[in-house]
Amino acid sequence: MKSIAINPDRLLDNLYELRKFGQYKTGVVRQMYSKADMESRHWLWEQLVQAGLDARIDGLGNVIGYSGKSLPTLLMGSHTDSQPVGGWLDGSYGVICALEIFRALAEDPDTAHMSVDIASWADEQNTYHGFLGCRGFLGLLQPQVISTAIRTDGYRLEEALLVAGLDGNSEQFVPDRYLGYLGIHVEQGPRLDIAQKSIGVVNQIAGCREFSVSFFGESNHAGSTPMAMRHDAGMAMMEFVSVLNRRYHQLATRQSVWTIGQVALDPGAACVIPGRAVMTLQFRDPSEKQLERMEQVLWQMTRAMHKGLKVDIQVEKTIDMPPVQLDEKVQEVLCQMASHHCPDQWQVMSSGAIHDVALFSRFMPSGLLFVPSIGGVSHSFDEDTSEEDLIAGCQVMADAAVELISQAS
Amino acid sequence: MKSIAINPDRLLDNLYELRKFGQYKTGVVRQMYSKADMESRHWLWEQLVQAGLDARIDGLGNVIGYSGKSLPTLLMGSHTDSQPVGGWLDGSYGVICALEIFRALAEDPDTAHMSVDIASWADEQNTYHGFLGCRGFLGLLQPQVISTAIRTDGYRLEEALLVAGLDGNSEQFVPDRYLGYLGIHVEQGPRLDIAQKSIGVVNQIAGCREFSVSFFGESNHAGSTPMAMRHDAGMAMMEFVSVLNRRYHQLATRQSVWTIGQVALDPGAACVIPGRAVMTLQFRDPSEKQLERMEQVLWQMTRAMHKGLKVDIQVEKTIDMPPVQLDEKVQEVLCQMASHHCPDQWQVMSSGAIHDVALFSRFMPSGLLFVPSIGGVSHSFDEDTSEEDLIAGCQVMADAAVELISQAS
Repeated sequence: MKSIAINPDRLLDNLYELRKFGQYKTGVVRQMYSKADMESRHWLWEQLVQAGLDARIDGLGNVIGYSGKSLPTLLMGSHTDSQPVGGWLDGSYGVICALEIFRALAEDPDTAHMSVDIASWADEQNTYHGFLGCRGFLGLLQPQVISTAIRTDGYRLEEALLVAGLDGNSEQFVPDRYLGYLGIHVEQGPRLDIAQKSIGVVNQIAGCREFSVSFFGESNHAGSTPMAMRHDAGMAMMEFVSVLNRRYHQLATRQSVWTIGQVALDPGAACVIPGRAVMTLQFRDPSEKQLERMEQVLWQMTRAMHKGLKVDIQVEKTIDMPPVQLDEKVQEVLCQMASHHCPDQWQVMSSGAIHDVALFSRFMPSGLLFVPSIGGVSHSFDEDTSEEDLIAGCQVMADAAVELISQAS
Repeated sequence: MKSIAINPDRLLDNLYELRKFGQYKTGVVRQMYSKADMESRHWLWEQLVQAGLDARIDGLGNVIGYSGKSLPTLLMGSHTDSQPVGGWLDGSYGVICALEIFRALAEDPDTAHMSVDIASWADEQNTYHGFLGCRGFLGLLQPQVISTAIRTDGYRLEEALLVAGLDGNSEQFVPDRYLGYLGIHVEQGPRLDIAQKSIGVVNQIAGCREFSVSFFGESNHAGSTPMAMRHDAGMAMMEFVSVLNRRYHQLATRQSVWTIGQVALDPGAACVIPGRAVMTLQFRDPSEKQLERMEQVLWQMTRAMHKGLKVDIQVEKTIDMPPVQLDEKVQEVLCQMASHHCPDQWQVMSSGAIHDVALFSRFMPSGLLFVPSIGGVSHSFDEDTSEEDLIAGCQVMADAAVELISQAS
């Protein structure tokens, strides 16, 4: 096998430079189409051009660098937009690794002919519409999304695009161009950190189902309405969650997770009994069967509990992403390189987080690497990874890129 | 006893006219210092002037009409500001009854000399600071309130006053002027409606304690953080409430009520484990001992549960209003008049809602009447009371006013 020489200082310098856009403490606030986000896209575009790529910012804000070299091409990408409270490596690490690998390949006479495209996909963090950019690139975007998607505060995607000077039209991928898609990301969970491993080779991405659950009771005065006469939508929601929680704990596999991340009470005043309560419920598992079981429990509880809770309950499914098995041959190459560079310091694992790789795997052989998140912390300003692991991840990915391109040529 | 002739049509017409300010469906949106609220204050001021009162809008927005007649004076008032989703009678009924009674007294030669002051007190609905207006009038307002009070959306009282052209200085009450305070209000609960009574004579007002309870966990990725490693502040809050709810149901007297009206999760995204959760907890009971018991359970649970829930819990007391026993002699007069006009259609009862009467009772003999709320509905556009009961309530209050002034003269 061929090992190419990545430049660790350049990798880290570029990561630190990218962090400056929207930096807050050691994290970032760089939500899609914000001023910081758009500035970082122009900065990235410049880096790609300077590295020798034919770079474009498309009408969705995707930053894509096309290699002018001979096919087949390996596509590598991730995202540079952030959560409202964002870690500095979430997404950014994958984009800067791809850039470093492109440069390292170009600098080595043995690999200078190899073709690698690089992308930062728009709105992977779902500020307006999750995976907006790569959906557009892959032809998976529903046409009405542009005119209907809104931010949680009601600000419209259409207006955000207008302000950013973007026309909403994305680049379209050419299937024959690509031999595969490769991504690398911080784990955003604690498993590698606990196991003291440097590299995770992802074999599957958990499926995810999300629901909006609404409780309809009766708003009334909190002082003068006796307990027995209340139809308290908020209390009903909390009792519902308490029972759901017990049921899910009984039912859970080791990889099942469930989260209530958003709740709202209406009217939401200390002295008024909530007439309406809404929450999100999201659960994930790598097994479709398990997802189905968890959904069935939700429906059963909804039917069984509304009477006892004295409220109406409405459930609406908002996300249904099936689990994804990643390409075995790509996995093999990733394992080989991890084993070479980090013997005993790597493992095969599933991903609880969804990644753009899940979408690309529908169209081409795709692979995903993880590096540890210290303390498992993510979507937080405190998110971090040791420099040693950041460098190791990039090196494993670089050599896997060489091997995959070699095999396909 | 002397019975004076109120004018039922004038009473209802004035109620309908006041409803036009901020009307939405059959309710009102007339929060303190809003455009609709300020316009309604100017309208009310005109009505008071036309009725022959020396009327003023003071620097807090209190609308006060002083009678020029011989002492002793009976003070009657309530509020005309509304909840965000407001009923048309909540407060307004008491103010318009007072106006009708003033007019009826003036029209009857036997009572034309009797002195009645009328007020609509500012911000009883706690848009910025609960009972702001009557606190100012009674000298109970902490001086820093004007510069620190804010609306839930962060808008400052100081700015609201500026926009409304008010200087923040209120009228000050002259203790010797008043023989007592009388209020009438819709019940805002179901007890009169269920008992099919027209009038409630209030003997006590429940005490109220309110707390802000915060749960501090760890925000993290909802897909990649295993359940066993989570410190989910939102889930902890909901489990806490579920246990608290059971404990309070065991502990409750027939008059104990408790409400969680506001909750917030931070950061509040479907795919992020909440790192922080905050809720309001409010409970009320006419017995101070029972309030103390309920508070003790809250503190015990806070100490006992934080370990099992894997979060820190902080409790801050935000309101502590002791129960109030109303003046027995005033009650006697109210019972006498209720019994005369509505034989078998009235009852003595406690109030779960707090009213300005509770504050006035610290300074002068005070009384409070209730009329039914249909279906017990309040703080809702659907709030309503039959015309028959609205008229009966005003008549009972009018004759009680005459009797109280006669007794004091």
